[in-house]
Amino acid sequence: MIYVSRQEHFNAAHKLYNPDWSREKNYEVFGPCANENWHGHNYDLIVTVKGYTDPETGFVIDLKKLSNLIKTEVIEKLDHKNLNLDVSFMKGKMASTEILVKEIWSILEPKIPPITSFGQLHSVKLYETPRNYVEYLGE
Amino acid sequence: MIYVSRQEHFNAAHKLYNPDWSREKNYEVFGPCANENWHGHNYDLIVTVKGYTDPETGFVIDLKKLSNLIKTEVIEKLDHKNLNLDVSFMKGKMASTEILVKEIWSILEPKIPPITSFGQLHSVKLYETPRNYVEYLGE
Amino acid sequence: MIYVSRQEHFNAAHKLYNPDWSREKNYEVFGPCANENWHGHNYDLIVTVKGYTDPETGFVIDLKKLSNLIKTEVIEKLDHKNLNLDVSFMKGKMASTEILVKEIWSILEPKIPPITSFGQLHSVKLYETPRNYVEYLGE
Amino acid sequence: MIYVSRQEHFNAAHKLYNPDWSREKNYEVFGPCANENWHGHNYDLIVTVKGYTDPETGFVIDLKKLSNLIKTEVIEKLDHKNLNLDVSFMKGKMASTEILVKEIWSILEPKIPPITSFGQLHSVKLYETPRNYVEYLGE
Amino acid sequence: MIYVSRQEHFNAAHKLYNPDWSREKNYEVFGPCANENWHGHNYDLIVTVKGYTDPETGFVIDLKKLSNLIKTEVIEKLDHKNLNLDVSFMKGKMASTEILVKEIWSILEPKIPPITSFGQLHSVKLYETPRNYVEYLGE
Amino acid sequence: MIYVSRQEHFNAAHKLYNPDWSREKNYEVFGPCANENWHGHNYDLIVTVKGYTDPETGFVIDLKKLSNLIKTEVIEKLDHKNLNLDVSFMKGKMASTEILVKEIWSILEPKIPPITSFGQLHSVKLYETPRNYVEYLGE
Repeated sequence: MIYVSRQEHFNAAHKLYNPDWSREKNYEVFGPCANENWHGHNYDLIVTVKGYTDPETGFVIDLKKLSNLIKTEVIEKLDHKNLNLDVSFMKGKMASTEILVKEIWSILEPKIPPITSFGQLHSVKLYETPRNYVEYLGE
Repeated sequence: MIYVSRQEHFNAAHKLYNPDWSREKNYEVFGPCANENWHGHNYDLIVTVKGYTDPETGFVIDLKKLSNLIKTEVIEKLDHKNLNLDVSFMKGKMASTEILVKEIWSILEPKIPPITSFGQLHSVKLYETPRNYVEYLGE
Repeated sequence: MIYVSRQEHFNAAHKLYNPDWSREKNYEVFGPCANENWHGHNYDLIVTVKGYTDPETGFVIDLKKLSNLIKTEVIEKLDHKNLNLDVSFMKGKMASTEILVKEIWSILEPKIPPITSFGQLHSVKLYETPRNYVEYLGE
Repeated sequence: MIYVSRQEHFNAAHKLYNPDWSREKNYEVFGPCANENWHGHNYDLIVTVKGYTDPETGFVIDLKKLSNLIKTEVIEKLDHKNLNLDVSFMKGKMASTEILVKEIWSILEPKIPPITSFGQLHSVKLYETPRNYVEYLGE
Repeated sequence: MIYVSRQEHFNAAHKLYNPDWSREKNYEVFGPCANENWHGHNYDLIVTVKGYTDPETGFVIDLKKLSNLIKTEVIEKLDHKNLNLDVSFMKGKMASTEILVKEIWSILEPKIPPITSFGQLHSVKLYETPRNYVEYLGE
Repeated sequence: MIYVSRQEHFNAAHKLYNPDWSREKNYEVFGPCANENWHGHNYDLIVTVKGYTDPETGFVIDLKKLSNLIKTEVIEKLDHKNLNLDVSFMKGKMASTEILVKEIWSILEPKIPPITSFGQLHSVKLYETPRNYVEYLGE
């Protein structure tokens, strides 16, 4: 079993804001992250697939195919977007890194086996800043 | 003459959008950067002061004072803000990294000598992403 | 279950020196790390909390609260200090990265639940240099 | 149980090319990585040993000994080499990062206990580029 | 005058080998870099354009156009290639980073003004490894 | 004229403390950097040589020779040392990054031409932390 990882990135705007709360409570809980005019980040996304190596290629997964999958299914929907307004799978959800990483898992998990006979999704890791990041392993 | 640098960072939303142009022309020129719902970045800012060393401290400038100046005068006005909407010195200007770096120079340049007898502002460098950055030397 | 991480840093002096051994044996085992006049490092510390997301905030833990906890309980006691001389919880112990990371775990582990209903400490990772680091998972 | 890691690096040439396939199929599957005239990378290698701390040294393993072991057993055989032509343990194998990381594990695993009473090999991680990497945990 | 930079990267194989010298002299001068079976690197390339900001866009140069120019004119000719064998503009030249950076300058310099009315090439910087790099300013 | 750079690193302890001042004034000016029990850093040192390329090697300077020179003349005197106590050329001087970078220049500048016919020292850059650094160009 080998773990193979690919890093991609996207730039997006968001705010942390619970619409069931008052403006005051949002600022109290989320501080400047609640700024109604938005702020944003350069997100780094690392997707890890685990599996066995194909004896003919030496690959668990073709990293170019994995990169293309991540770009088509995730990056194009998030890059230069507003996470609260522009992203269909984030509608009605808090735009936290935790929620986002689970949604990315849900998108990618069923699409990994079709592009590799030997691997399955192991982890999705998302850096909001170089100092703040989250990881989801699917359970 | 020694060059002393301090790096700070801020997270902000913006869009590249010329209000004198049609929506179509903005998308044609700026591509996804024109997204009307904004996008954002983790900006890294490097401020360089040049000067001679104070024989009593061995410093050109006290980096804690320089850090505090950058935070008070620049970071607090930009961090978790929308560069087009929330920042008074960017009002009516294109929110490009080039314009922003010149504005940051204008703010910091007159405030450096009061906190050092031996130095003056030499450069302001601003990373919009790890792969895109600009530098301004004041002329 | 999501893993949320926050990175902080501190600068400290130390030496590797076993007082039960002769000076010669210390230099033989620890090499230049035994230098009696000390040496030092820029340490990077990554604290990971695991848990479920609070449906109201989308957070496993408020990273600002986690950052403040790490700063108050750990960084203030280590930053610009001598690990052998100035740090009460390292007294009488070898100032290795391995011992230090376990002590940091002991300090933080009981203080994580009070600042999150949904998380608990998962890992403490400590970089002594960019090429040398240790991790402790509590068992 | 503490996990201790050491990073080393090497520069090498390779190509991805299955000799049982036609030139056309190699280019179809591996794209530019199949270039018969080779290409190359700056590889970063992270070796992690897990174990208990020696009460006399505070070490799971002496990182200088681990560094020397990696250099002698792995780096000297790979650095400034052609992975397909110059490396005895890669002969007849696909020069993928997945295959390489398993070979490095096989070399290092039996040699860790002789240089530490308290540790054993936990993981070998290999970066082919900053965005593509693999990890092997021995099973 | 503002300096705007864009970073791209490519992976390539090369050797340092003067065909006018004996094999022995090549190994004596270039050490393992003379390995006849090649070695390789992940190169990082930073191109800096200097100029004035276009008042309509706030740009010295459209970084997407600069990125496309670098990819078309430089990266496609170098990525996954052998610098000694596959690159027409390096034929008959030493494949050192110094020679390569000058050739990249010669290719890009005349092509910058057509894609910006306000800028010209200022610098080409090339990292062979994170610790070894060269810069050329055109004179 | 091409600029060629090599990065090396060392770990050291120091304090900022002017012996002509009272303990109180030292803490007032230097804050925690005045800690009498020392603190320390992982320093990164970048040395840049400028010159013309030797037509036989394609080199301005052989980077292995430059690396060896830096290690022998600078790193061995600073690594795992106390900058205030152990380093002969820092005796009686403030152990600031500014003073240190000028001393490193003085050591290296006369020793560059003997190892290259085509180059001379251009710059010495010293990172005390990733966010604080100084550069000296010799005048």
